[in-house]
Amino acid sequence: MAVAPIRVAVLGSTGSIGRQTLDVIRQLPARFRVVGLAGGNNTTLLEDQCREFKPNVVCCTDSAQHMAIKAAAGPKTRWAPLEEMAAHPDVDVVVVATVGAAGLGATLSALRAGKAVALANKEVLVMAGHIVTAEAERGRGELRPVDSEHSAIWQCLWGEDFGSVEKIILTASGGAFRDKPVRELDRVTPREALKHPTWDMGRKITIDSATLMNKGFEAIEARWLFNVPMDRIEVVIHRESIVHSLVEFADGSVKAQLGEPDMRLPIQCALTYPERLPSAGVPRLNLARTKALHFEAPDLGRYPCLRLALETGTKGGSWPAVLAAADEVAVEQFALGAIGFTDIPRVVDAALSAHTGAADPTLEAVLEADAWARSFALERCGALQAAGRR
Amino acid sequence: MAVAPIRVAVLGSTGSIGRQTLDVIRQLPARFRVVGLAGGNNTTLLEDQCREFKPNVVCCTDSAQHMAIKAAAGPKTRWAPLEEMAAHPDVDVVVVATVGAAGLGATLSALRAGKAVALANKEVLVMAGHIVTAEAERGRGELRPVDSEHSAIWQCLWGEDFGSVEKIILTASGGAFRDKPVRELDRVTPREALKHPTWDMGRKITIDSATLMNKGFEAIEARWLFNVPMDRIEVVIHRESIVHSLVEFADGSVKAQLGEPDMRLPIQCALTYPERLPSAGVPRLNLARTKALHFEAPDLGRYPCLRLALETGTKGGSWPAVLAAADEVAVEQFALGAIGFTDIPRVVDAALSAHTGAADPTLEAVLEADAWARSFALERCGALQAAGRR
Repeated sequence: MAVAPIRVAVLGSTGSIGRQTLDVIRQLPARFRVVGLAGGNNTTLLEDQCREFKPNVVCCTDSAQHMAIKAAAGPKTRWAPLEEMAAHPDVDVVVVATVGAAGLGATLSALRAGKAVALANKEVLVMAGHIVTAEAERGRGELRPVDSEHSAIWQCLWGEDFGSVEKIILTASGGAFRDKPVRELDRVTPREALKHPTWDMGRKITIDSATLMNKGFEAIEARWLFNVPMDRIEVVIHRESIVHSLVEFADGSVKAQLGEPDMRLPIQCALTYPERLPSAGVPRLNLARTKALHFEAPDLGRYPCLRLALETGTKGGSWPAVLAAADEVAVEQFALGAIGFTDIPRVVDAALSAHTGAADPTLEAVLEADAWARSFALERCGALQAAGRR
Repeated sequence: MAVAPIRVAVLGSTGSIGRQTLDVIRQLPARFRVVGLAGGNNTTLLEDQCREFKPNVVCCTDSAQHMAIKAAAGPKTRWAPLEEMAAHPDVDVVVVATVGAAGLGATLSALRAGKAVALANKEVLVMAGHIVTAEAERGRGELRPVDSEHSAIWQCLWGEDFGSVEKIILTASGGAFRDKPVRELDRVTPREALKHPTWDMGRKITIDSATLMNKGFEAIEARWLFNVPMDRIEVVIHRESIVHSLVEFADGSVKAQLGEPDMRLPIQCALTYPERLPSAGVPRLNLARTKALHFEAPDLGRYPCLRLALETGTKGGSWPAVLAAADEVAVEQFALGAIGFTDIPRVVDAALSAHTGAADPTLEAVLEADAWARSFALERCGALQAAGRR
């Protein structure tokens, strides 16, 4: 019996998650149809992808490249902005793999149209978890996590009653500096921060992994995805990145999802749920070869960003949007060499302290907080840089 | 809203699993009602249990104790043989925690009557898995595992399609002699064999853990419980007994169930499924405190019983009944000091080789094979003992 293919739109197709999503689709060509592709500034890659997958609709940040990209995709391909692509009637699953605030509108649009959203964009839930989950509850739309940690939790919750969740335990590799003395952290370079011990990811997320801000974002995302209060979310350092996360239930039973670190597995899960399809390319776990899995409590002195994020997640309102925006600017400025690694939490903390927020902000208020925090953080980075030069 | 209590019969209530089942029930008195209790030779304990739980029906091996036990339970309590108790109209869940072949008839009777069977008796599925699972499929009865390993696999399969199971990975502590040089194994004493590194269990199962025969039985049980061919079942040594077992799915995703070693957790799961209730007494897992989980491939040279069991599980028919019966006798004779530790696999292997079996035996043929193997093994143990004394 022929199975109808799953029709996918990939928003952010030229980024790390977008490219791996297309890898998954390449492995199971009969099971998928790429309906939409939206890319960023790498228009050459987007052209190649359009040539290969012939999507119905395309989009890219650089509108000067419209004609070239449409030409690569074919005569039947239309141009559509992100939010329209996300709600396209021929799409079943929208992969939101954009970076930053760009994915928020598209996610809301997809949920409103009753789509399954495979969500890889952290900022969407960190900034506006209350708005996004309310939209998912209102319509027939559905959020499916793509992050390996949230995918792990999600898989552990299949067949379980969410009400019996006692605790969510997020695992963290500890990032590039997990073994570096804390006193040396103010001298580390962007190049060193980009050496992630277990995962090969984009620049922003790799630096966020070194500060553990990324894990803090994930805690906030988990709070919304699984409707669990922040104080039931824990972080444990797990160097091997084999146990992707765990759930403890009311009876004390703990379930975990494991695998070699490979994003294609959670991506495929999010695309094919509730089915599990064979995956050709994903390496198989061999515990006897792995030998040992290690766990330790995170040292919040080493990881002030984690502490800030957990506190901010508990506070809620418009503060998490400030957290995410200030962090994005600070990480960018660190990557450019303008500020030091230990300045990242300083900038974020200053923005959080200066923010006059709202407890239950509208989407507009969230976007305003985001814009305010960016400008505040940029200014603060400038001041730090100037002070450093004196 | 008051919830109707789950009505339980505990077959083997004075054994290790039976006593822990009653502990679980004591923690949640409003959620359970003990309808039946059946014990072995420890009639004093059975009397105490009857006094505490006032079951409707009782039974014990020692029929001379009828009157004393009925007196303890109260005037309304009736005497009923195991198979009748298992099919009692007021029972929802039958805990089969008897040892050896005794649980087989009761399990079949319970399944025929449409009960949920919380199965802690290994021999039932090892001896007659094809008959028991056919009975479960025919009626409305249901098998729920109680073993920590099978409970782990079961929990990992909630919400999953059994067809997407790629591999079942049973964890094994490695038993009392995991670090002893193989050449010293023929001189170990029963006392040493009874020192299990992580679990506190009965005598037979502790010795079976030292030989890993227990893990071989579990592989055969898993084959029937989860309808997975033997070649998809693997064993991995995991010293800490924290990861109770794992399932690998078609997409490469692996799910595991974890917890401190405490049988009350899987027992409670089997009693309350599909609900998870709070468990007061069960210690909570703390991975940061555990620090490390270790895994290694089992050395079949160290564990010939595991090899025998895996081969016998693949062969099927009446051979697994011979495996279980010969092992029971050999372990008993080892515990009595009649034969050496390394004689256990020798006796079992000899029985398997000498057995003229059937591929799809009836229940009668299974019981015949069991009886034949017991007498064969006892004779062989006698010969080994005699040879040792010369």
